[in-house]
Amino acid sequence: MKSVKVGLLGLGTIGTGVAKILTRKQEMIERAVGKKIELVKICDRNTSNDRGLGLPEGMLTDNVAEIMDDPEISIVVELIGGTTVARDFVLMALDKGKNVVTANKALIAKCGEELFEKAREKGVTIGFEASVGGGIPVLASIQTSLQANRIESIQAICNGTCNFILSEMESKNAPYADALKEAQRLGFAEANPTLDVDGSDSTQKLAILAQLAFGVKVDWQTIPRVGVDVVDAIDVTFARELGRKIRLLAIAERAEKGLVLKVAPTLVPENSNLAMVTNAFNAIRIVGDSVGPVFYQGWGAGQDPTASAVCSDVIDCALGRTKITFDSLRLWSDEREGVPILDAKEITSRAYIRFNVEDRPGVLAEISAALGKRGVSIAAMLQHPKENMDDKLVTIILMTYEAPAAALQEALDELATIPYIGKPVCLAVRD
Amino acid sequence: MKSVKVGLLGLGTIGTGVAKILTRKQEMIERAVGKKIELVKICDRNTSNDRGLGLPEGMLTDNVAEIMDDPEISIVVELIGGTTVARDFVLMALDKGKNVVTANKALIAKCGEELFEKAREKGVTIGFEASVGGGIPVLASIQTSLQANRIESIQAICNGTCNFILSEMESKNAPYADALKEAQRLGFAEANPTLDVDGSDSTQKLAILAQLAFGVKVDWQTIPRVGVDVVDAIDVTFARELGRKIRLLAIAERAEKGLVLKVAPTLVPENSNLAMVTNAFNAIRIVGDSVGPVFYQGWGAGQDPTASAVCSDVIDCALGRTKITFDSLRLWSDEREGVPILDAKEITSRAYIRFNVEDRPGVLAEISAALGKRGVSIAAMLQHPKENMDDKLVTIILMTYEAPAAALQEALDELATIPYIGKPVCLAVRD
Repeated sequence: MKSVKVGLLGLGTIGTGVAKILTRKQEMIERAVGKKIELVKICDRNTSNDRGLGLPEGMLTDNVAEIMDDPEISIVVELIGGTTVARDFVLMALDKGKNVVTANKALIAKCGEELFEKAREKGVTIGFEASVGGGIPVLASIQTSLQANRIESIQAICNGTCNFILSEMESKNAPYADALKEAQRLGFAEANPTLDVDGSDSTQKLAILAQLAFGVKVDWQTIPRVGVDVVDAIDVTFARELGRKIRLLAIAERAEKGLVLKVAPTLVPENSNLAMVTNAFNAIRIVGDSVGPVFYQGWGAGQDPTASAVCSDVIDCALGRTKITFDSLRLWSDEREGVPILDAKEITSRAYIRFNVEDRPGVLAEISAALGKRGVSIAAMLQHPKENMDDKLVTIILMTYEAPAAALQEALDELATIPYIGKPVCLAVRD
Repeated sequence: MKSVKVGLLGLGTIGTGVAKILTRKQEMIERAVGKKIELVKICDRNTSNDRGLGLPEGMLTDNVAEIMDDPEISIVVELIGGTTVARDFVLMALDKGKNVVTANKALIAKCGEELFEKAREKGVTIGFEASVGGGIPVLASIQTSLQANRIESIQAICNGTCNFILSEMESKNAPYADALKEAQRLGFAEANPTLDVDGSDSTQKLAILAQLAFGVKVDWQTIPRVGVDVVDAIDVTFARELGRKIRLLAIAERAEKGLVLKVAPTLVPENSNLAMVTNAFNAIRIVGDSVGPVFYQGWGAGQDPTASAVCSDVIDCALGRTKITFDSLRLWSDEREGVPILDAKEITSRAYIRFNVEDRPGVLAEISAALGKRGVSIAAMLQHPKENMDDKLVTIILMTYEAPAAALQEALDELATIPYIGKPVCLAVRD
């Protein structure tokens, strides 16, 4: 039987994990799935170090042509990251009639339409399971196992860094900055964590989930987004008093008139599955109209879990399953039936709002009047006694009932004109 | 494009759910996967009632030949249940070159080898996602998404009836009999619940999981099995004192020398994912050597969730994915590499043991001596003061550290010879 030959672009953390599985478990995989899958070439700028893999002479190269021009290589695994070189190389591989497997959520979220169109034109496929949820097989589930369902909603904790930070703030009453430092110390956060903590990474993943589950093509930058960097230790405390925990949720859910997409730190009930997700774990809760809620949890990042997902894509591709799924779903094409996306203003939802206000009579009355006259009802209000009587500011938090986002925004806009009420922090609430 | 034609055997609860999806969502599925899938014939003994489906004239028949002899029907869905008529009809369908989809765990667990061999001989496939975990796509995960992993362990809550009973005992301090009655009243338990509460159903599912994940062909009746029917309200109370909850776990895990298979009510840490699974939910925790732990939760039974899984198999089959997976995995064949199964006596594990003993001096000493001299260490011991001083019996519970099952059994055999120590109840413990 002919083996399936694989070329790997990028020998960083994930690339090394993939190379480890494909070389060390080659026989195990062959026995399990009845097909020999061979990693034959790895391209990386740094060829002086084989990351302890003990690669055979000549397998590691810095010349991408050795992969692109090898007609024997039918699968190219892209683990370079980013949307510049990675995009060029993926397009090049597709153009040469090679199937692509990638873990690159930024690339898929930004260039999905271009790449999938090119793949269809060339009769090849793109596997991207590892781009969302690391080792959790959630994209496969949506693309295959849940096909008899109309998906109603997806709630995803899909950034391990942020979940670690929130867990740390929760368990140690730590301020945000300390929790972030601890995440960096343990290697859960990058030196520059901006794309994680401002919610960008989660939003890119949401854009991918939304294409798969709801057929929408959405520029991830247009999705309303709040990062964990606005969460203060006091929010964690107040959430606890409200019987809730804060999780950074990427949400896609059908409302009456269309699809709600948003990423925000969200107060979820403390006994819910999502609240139980601690540390750097990821989790996804999908509700289908037939299956009901299905909940997945696992490591969303890290060398081995992500490599597990990449290699499952390589196996699927080698066996021909990817081709069937790819052809049937027509992802990022105009043939898909998309759900209309609601404008942020059209959404109705609950909210948690933290105000820092000057401690003076009448402030609470002004806040509640601004909300009340627009029909925004208050479900809970908390204010703690000042610890230091010299403080000029006090913190007031409100949790609203379901209300139109537009009405809430109007109220906040009005309050923004009052000089002794500071700019509020708004988080989401889900029951 | 030619449509794929489906025949359905059995119009009970699940059958009605499947017919509902295939008829009412036919267009949605066609748009989503690009293939028309048509339910053309349903066979049931009772043709006087179409279960509110509004079936076209002639679709419902009591003559199975109308399905078996129709060369246009390429997929037969078996939802009769049991291992007699169902087995005959599945063999007949395979013999006629038709692909089979079934939710029948008893059939797959008992006749897997025979059925899969026949399917291979005829070049057709068997889909059985719905046989374990209802709507949770756990079999698909093991068969495809986790293929780059050596599976280390599976722990499954795969019987909703038992989980409901345990949850009910937990939340209401209810005795077993009351919890069972409540399960029956709500339709979670059958009038004759034996196969659920004695662990048979979970054990059949474990046999299927063990074949998929570890390649073993095992007669489910040889797997050590304890049902929830031995659990007393006092066990739930004691478990709580030990910081644990009781869940009926089907366990398959690699030990040093082979595979441990068992089904037993198991004390799990109260903050673990499995402990959080309440009500009639199912959940499966799989640990792979690369992916780490992956946890799935969802409805394990019920009309719509199970029908969701059946229909995903029908779609997979219609698209040709099942054929690829089926051919590559060679399930229930001698080509699979199986892990040796450990004899119950070779297992090392922790245990929870409840003794009912006469309240007399020296009893605890005898129990602890019997265990101690065989190297079985006690991690916790609990005895509550008698509520009624007239009671002649007291309850003592022990939780051991890891110990060889053989040593524990010897100790229990010795204690069984002492007339004032009653036969103990042994549950499993997992950390």
